[in-house]
Amino acid sequence: MRKTDATIRIAKRELEGHFYEPRTGLPGVLFIHGWNGSQDRDAERSRAISRLGCVCLTFDMRGHGLTQSERPKVTRTDNLEDICAAYDKLVTHPSVDASCILVVASSYGAYLSTFLTAVRPVKWLAMRVPALYSDDDWDQPKDAIDREDLRLYRSTEVPLMSNRALKHCQHFGGDVLIVESEKDERIPHPTIASYLASFKRACSITHRIIEGADHSLSRLESRRVYDEILVRWIKEMVLAAR
Amino acid sequence: MRKTDATIRIAKRELEGHFYEPRTGLPGVLFIHGWNGSQDRDAERSRAISRLGCVCLTFDMRGHGLTQSERPKVTRTDNLEDICAAYDKLVTHPSVDASCILVVASSYGAYLSTFLTAVRPVKWLAMRVPALYSDDDWDQPKDAIDREDLRLYRSTEVPLMSNRALKHCQHFGGDVLIVESEKDERIPHPTIASYLASFKRACSITHRIIEGADHSLSRLESRRVYDEILVRWIKEMVLAAR
Repeated sequence: MRKTDATIRIAKRELEGHFYEPRTGLPGVLFIHGWNGSQDRDAERSRAISRLGCVCLTFDMRGHGLTQSERPKVTRTDNLEDICAAYDKLVTHPSVDASCILVVASSYGAYLSTFLTAVRPVKWLAMRVPALYSDDDWDQPKDAIDREDLRLYRSTEVPLMSNRALKHCQHFGGDVLIVESEKDERIPHPTIASYLASFKRACSITHRIIEGADHSLSRLESRRVYDEILVRWIKEMVLAAR
Repeated sequence: MRKTDATIRIAKRELEGHFYEPRTGLPGVLFIHGWNGSQDRDAERSRAISRLGCVCLTFDMRGHGLTQSERPKVTRTDNLEDICAAYDKLVTHPSVDASCILVVASSYGAYLSTFLTAVRPVKWLAMRVPALYSDDDWDQPKDAIDREDLRLYRSTEVPLMSNRALKHCQHFGGDVLIVESEKDERIPHPTIASYLASFKRACSITHRIIEGADHSLSRLESRRVYDEILVRWIKEMVLAAR
């Protein structure tokens, strides 16, 4: 059990109280959207996964949702800070077992989630179409990165030691799911291969390709297949472990 | 499942987020202390009961704990307001099933808890040495009530229709536990009998007397017996119902 402060506010005063509660300890799931994405894309998925007995948190990164106007200035440092703050919000939820955190991230969010694993405990990592960026332009606004440079960078397998995200993958000791889109116009297979090669200490690696899918899963059928892959993996990894 | 807003604060900004969580639905237990009491008296009890799988809330009523200096002015209206605010705090706890609330109250707190049942859903009501007061002096500061008047009022059985607390008991449809102290110097048996007679619609009534106990359970052995009675009743009523 645990004891926590509970301040009871009435009109102009505060009463001192305390909660005493059992450690129910549900797994916590942090959803991280991609660049130009939003938390709304994970809303239905979060509902479904919460019904399996997990506490899910979705959020809009800086430069998205209500702060969309800031997008041109936002850097990876900014968004990594956002992700850490969201993680901290999730683990302090009273029903969450802080030692059982799953991160479900897409594209740019999946790239940043590798940095999260270096600073916060993450037990399970589900990455859909993880993006990859060179370390060099880390402090540039994300929107200012040259698209052609990016295309070139992602078109061949990136050596593990030359990229911080891949180095973080190398140290990750949990279970990994990597979901690729067969017809991805942004993330070509060599980038996926770079990630797959980097998880040298993972408990398990599950790699799946969604046939005919594009980067953003614009087709309903592709989203349905992704949901199936994700839920099956969560049942196997997260729920069976408990 | 349920969806709730989750604002993530970082430095000078807020990010919009949402929690999606299963309804774990634990019973909530509100502890209400007596006059001159404090939440500390229920601390160990709350620990034990939370380990059975309940979320417990203890708090200090106005005029007690940190606001002790206000005691001479505090009225029943004030403390009933406190109790309602504490109840509202408990039912909004994310792990609590708001339809499964147990109130565990002593003496003056047990008297006031009957008024709570008239304005908030309470499924189980455990009253230890419930006090009884005339309706007439409701708006007087509690500390100003004449002790001799009180002694007289409590020394004979009070007719149900002449007292608001007893009328609330008459409408209570849940399970009731009434624990009496054999050597109670404040609450004589006729007061307990008034309460017992008033619960005309209760699902069940359990009445127990702690042998040799005084009003405040000053002896360790009396407190141990009370804990046993309370825990056994909670296991039978609250946990078995789930």
